[in-house]
Amino acid sequence: MQTSAPTLQSFIAGRWIGQQAAGALKSAINGKTVFHAHADSIDFAEALAFARRAGIKSLLAMDFQQRAARLKAMAAYLIEHKEKLYAISHHTGATRADSWIDIEGGSGTLFAYAGVGAGELPSGNIVHEGPAVPLGKKGSFAGTHILVPRGGVAVHINAFNFPIWGLLEKFAPTFLAGMPCIAKPATATSYLTEAMVRLLNESGLLPEGALQLVIGSTGDLLDRLDGQDVVTFTGSADTAARLRANPNLIARSVPFNAEADSLNCAILASDVTPDDEEFDLFVKEVAREMSVKAGQKCTAIRRAIVPRKHLDAVAERLAARLAKIAVGDPSVEGVKMGALASKAQQADVAERVALLCTGNEIVFGDKSGFKPMGEGTAEGSFFAPTLLLCRDGAANSAVHDVEAFGPVSTLMPYDDIEQAIELSARGKGSLVSTLVTRDPGVAAKVVPAIAAWHGRVHILDREAAGESTGHGSPLPLLKHGGPGRAGGGEELGGVRAVKHYLQRAAVQGSPTMLTAVTGEYVRGARVQEADLHPFRKWFDDLSVGDSLLTHRRTVTDADIVAFGGISGDYFYMHFDEIAARESPFGKRIAHGYFVLSAAAGLFVSPAKGPVLANYGLDTLRFVKPVGIGDTIQARLTCKRKIDRPAKKDQPAQGVVAWDVQVTNQDGEMVASYDILTLVLKRPTAQQAG
Amino acid sequence: MQTSAPTLQSFIAGRWIGQQAAGALKSAINGKTVFHAHADSIDFAEALAFARRAGIKSLLAMDFQQRAARLKAMAAYLIEHKEKLYAISHHTGATRADSWIDIEGGSGTLFAYAGVGAGELPSGNIVHEGPAVPLGKKGSFAGTHILVPRGGVAVHINAFNFPIWGLLEKFAPTFLAGMPCIAKPATATSYLTEAMVRLLNESGLLPEGALQLVIGSTGDLLDRLDGQDVVTFTGSADTAARLRANPNLIARSVPFNAEADSLNCAILASDVTPDDEEFDLFVKEVAREMSVKAGQKCTAIRRAIVPRKHLDAVAERLAARLAKIAVGDPSVEGVKMGALASKAQQADVAERVALLCTGNEIVFGDKSGFKPMGEGTAEGSFFAPTLLLCRDGAANSAVHDVEAFGPVSTLMPYDDIEQAIELSARGKGSLVSTLVTRDPGVAAKVVPAIAAWHGRVHILDREAAGESTGHGSPLPLLKHGGPGRAGGGEELGGVRAVKHYLQRAAVQGSPTMLTAVTGEYVRGARVQEADLHPFRKWFDDLSVGDSLLTHRRTVTDADIVAFGGISGDYFYMHFDEIAARESPFGKRIAHGYFVLSAAAGLFVSPAKGPVLANYGLDTLRFVKPVGIGDTIQARLTCKRKIDRPAKKDQPAQGVVAWDVQVTNQDGEMVASYDILTLVLKRPTAQQAG
Repeated sequence: MQTSAPTLQSFIAGRWIGQQAAGALKSAINGKTVFHAHADSIDFAEALAFARRAGIKSLLAMDFQQRAARLKAMAAYLIEHKEKLYAISHHTGATRADSWIDIEGGSGTLFAYAGVGAGELPSGNIVHEGPAVPLGKKGSFAGTHILVPRGGVAVHINAFNFPIWGLLEKFAPTFLAGMPCIAKPATATSYLTEAMVRLLNESGLLPEGALQLVIGSTGDLLDRLDGQDVVTFTGSADTAARLRANPNLIARSVPFNAEADSLNCAILASDVTPDDEEFDLFVKEVAREMSVKAGQKCTAIRRAIVPRKHLDAVAERLAARLAKIAVGDPSVEGVKMGALASKAQQADVAERVALLCTGNEIVFGDKSGFKPMGEGTAEGSFFAPTLLLCRDGAANSAVHDVEAFGPVSTLMPYDDIEQAIELSARGKGSLVSTLVTRDPGVAAKVVPAIAAWHGRVHILDREAAGESTGHGSPLPLLKHGGPGRAGGGEELGGVRAVKHYLQRAAVQGSPTMLTAVTGEYVRGARVQEADLHPFRKWFDDLSVGDSLLTHRRTVTDADIVAFGGISGDYFYMHFDEIAARESPFGKRIAHGYFVLSAAAGLFVSPAKGPVLANYGLDTLRFVKPVGIGDTIQARLTCKRKIDRPAKKDQPAQGVVAWDVQVTNQDGEMVASYDILTLVLKRPTAQQAG
Repeated sequence: MQTSAPTLQSFIAGRWIGQQAAGALKSAINGKTVFHAHADSIDFAEALAFARRAGIKSLLAMDFQQRAARLKAMAAYLIEHKEKLYAISHHTGATRADSWIDIEGGSGTLFAYAGVGAGELPSGNIVHEGPAVPLGKKGSFAGTHILVPRGGVAVHINAFNFPIWGLLEKFAPTFLAGMPCIAKPATATSYLTEAMVRLLNESGLLPEGALQLVIGSTGDLLDRLDGQDVVTFTGSADTAARLRANPNLIARSVPFNAEADSLNCAILASDVTPDDEEFDLFVKEVAREMSVKAGQKCTAIRRAIVPRKHLDAVAERLAARLAKIAVGDPSVEGVKMGALASKAQQADVAERVALLCTGNEIVFGDKSGFKPMGEGTAEGSFFAPTLLLCRDGAANSAVHDVEAFGPVSTLMPYDDIEQAIELSARGKGSLVSTLVTRDPGVAAKVVPAIAAWHGRVHILDREAAGESTGHGSPLPLLKHGGPGRAGGGEELGGVRAVKHYLQRAAVQGSPTMLTAVTGEYVRGARVQEADLHPFRKWFDDLSVGDSLLTHRRTVTDADIVAFGGISGDYFYMHFDEIAARESPFGKRIAHGYFVLSAAAGLFVSPAKGPVLANYGLDTLRFVKPVGIGDTIQARLTCKRKIDRPAKKDQPAQGVVAWDVQVTNQDGEMVASYDILTLVLKRPTAQQAG
């Protein structure tokens, strides 16, 4: 098979595979063949073995913090080379704005996960999901949880609509978790994914075996997976169900996460009048969701649910707005909406629109007169924006069941908000819904009611509008995925997604053992009484468990009086003998913040040293009151160290959290908290010199 | 069919169903028929409709805090009537100690979840899983997550070994989440479950429709479920796989959680010598796991992995200990191990032991001479403790694959710790493993390596031994469930389990809208400037968003000097002009704790009032330093209210968290934190009078 269009290659076991051309991949704009898939078969046993051996090894040679830094570098590399991707993305039918979502949204997700890793994950490769809890009365047995690398491979199967973002939004948390990926983009637009993977590979930033790419079929890949592996899927509900039923995945309890297209909705609340800014925000949002990516988003608004009294006004304004959307080759100036991804999609959408039309009206959508702008577009995969009207959404089931994956949406009226909530639930589980309202009371009522059926709820009003990222955009820090028809899965959501690629284990044992395993001091564990004050140790020299028991201090009436004077806090419990006597404590007590401040005075090491700053404090509990005459003492123990990759223009340093226990003369705890510090690393010979 | 043994009944739609006797359920001790299942069929459409209508309504009429209190009352009721359950439990073959795990372990799980609810869940029926994150630069659009009731039904399918605990450990978190349950115990021992459900029902504490009980088959129940429902299963891996493949569950993405029997192991580390206390702890733990509940625990130790050098010593001591275990009718004095649950189990275990014997040796287990103590026990379902020895665990696959669900375990040697880790992973996913070691360094190495394959890791040494709850016991606060063969599920684990029965949704909008939806103040939201100082309002009168902007205070050198004097904190950043000048801040700055104390002085309301105590502080961050001459001001905003059911001997009160932002003269944030207070409710007319 000879052709001028290039043949794509899979990236398997460190090699680009694919010499022989297979099926043609055509431009969505003009139907010309732009690439070929490859005919060469892939040895999935080899791919898995490579991921398990080389991939896990190279990933776990770094820790969470280092992988986060690497993700940031990869994101920067992709942004630097983004124009190469925009040039190719054009073939998919995408406008520049559509491609922005895919290309810069994808890189942005890498940046976001770099931030999640740096800010929320430890150094090392174990997450301690504490706190540890005592499991006995004497404190010699406790339990906690850790998250560890699963030791398996993630197989990510993606949809055709976002060839770059689709891969990267799954890759980012997987990479951070230290798990190698085998990614399989939908073949129709896999040329764009291939170009991106080539860039990542050329960057030299991709650890060996961390990412493999499959162009074409996954063959027997799923049949070869095991319980430590993970499969994720984005695409149609039918395919999700077929893959989920794979006997091997079921037999081995392989986690399977699905994001499926769903019949997302937008609800216009009845407090909004046609004169309100929010009314137009609703119209604009629906029109935008219909036209962005030519409506090929699993999050697009398929059902617009509006008060019956405003049905005509919405229909009219929406039709007017749709009429202004120029459709055609995005390289033609003025074009706002591009093509569907393929002729197959075009036929599929047409078929589904026909189904949706039964019993419903077409408000907008000109079949016969539709002529996309640009040369050769008659051979492209364009589809006219189509707005339907279903006058009785309760009686019609097609509008809640049939998804036309294109620029198609159905308007339906409701009588009261309970009916709107019911209609929204008729989708049987969606990825996202939008509520447009001015009234926080309406949001407080409607959002919890629809949240059980929608993975994400977007509330739109004039306050939010200026910065809203829109109905259709999944964001790295928010969960993406919905129940029921939407697949029942969860992706993204910040650090939650990283945890999907780690294995959680409960750990029980003595506090000393739990400290050793988690790398974090657990109360009751043996400590090392410091030879040197722990605040005088460099980050490198500090060990978890390094501990200081301070001298003591007797709290007197003078302390309370002086502390009231300096703070201005004359609360009756400290100063009013009469009221304090009637209180549960029965007497005047010292200020809690005095105890905190006096404890700092007990353990501070005044001279300049490695501790740069105490930048915060967590989980402070005043466990018991401190009265006049009580004598307090503090124990300061190194609890947790987070080593961070060096930053430019900043002396090398790490985060150290310290466990503080303040006790009284009877050994009873009076205050308990963690303090957070930045501690310098030992200067290198060069710096020291 | 006439018989003297009673017929069990299902509890469906508020009625006890079952008049006609079906299959006989026999005593495990003597084979006599003790109960009959019922022949009457169950209308599962009715059961589901009842749960969805009455169950959800009655459960959500309460909030998390109220359901937690209700769980506590149910637990207390069961404990009060526990002897009724012990009397029936005897028929299952259980000793008093075995029944304790089931009966008091079950009630204890209710108590534990009552504590989780009271301590970790809000009042109301929405969990705000924050913090909210800004999604734009101006602060007008933010995102967060909420967890809401799913609006569906939980179907819990249980195993025969723990008829009470099995139901209650699933019921407790489901109830707390506000989700109705339909529970189906294994028929063989369902008489004990039925007795417990009757008690719960008689207590009057069970809300209508919150719990239904199915004796016998689940019929078409699973085929009727929807995406908002949940199925959990405990039992064999084969049955788990069959249920998981149910086409309706797959088509509707119904969450399915499985706990399957697995080939759990215990590893004796090579640092332990036969003279160490830990050596005997290992032997004792293995013997105990073989004999408790006659080894019918999905967590029991099936593989004992020991250093080759100590193989003979372990075998000898273990055999000696097993020889001392008297087997028979638990009502006979001295009996330490009872019967398997049924003749069918007895035959099954015998068959699997035969499989395990191929190529392996029997160290202990007397088939011919085995005679259980007590009358009629020849007709019971007893099985002799059986210890096998596999000299080459790497070569034999049966010992890692075939589970004899009885008092059966296999001993196998290892040469180095890497081999022990490999052998443990050969189980392809287990619920739990035990590591016996003296050396925290060994634990730090082995535990993370085996954690990917084991849902729970139990570390045993002399320090932990006194309070250890043992290898085999899942605990309410620790995750139960393991990857791969163990089913890939998660149960328990404290509040995690409650979240499995709620639906998570991301919510985006203006901070004002997010505050309305979550019931928790999100920064940037509109606040109500208080007419009255918020610290002077009763709990009932406070609204989230009630806010106070304080007067200001200029920080002077005198403040720093005085604060150093009262606290004793003479850190160079506050007192050493020279060193401070060289620091990143370039000048002396005020103590962070001074800023905190001065802020309290700004917003405190000194006279006695509704605020009882400031008992803690969370997430304090010193965002920017405060220098001499800076002027600070605080904003105090009611962030979160938790209403709690009244307690005896305590004035009615609730928890109030306050958001505090301290700013400087330029409006920049210098400190940010939450303070936690207890606030009195308005006294009732009676109390006031």
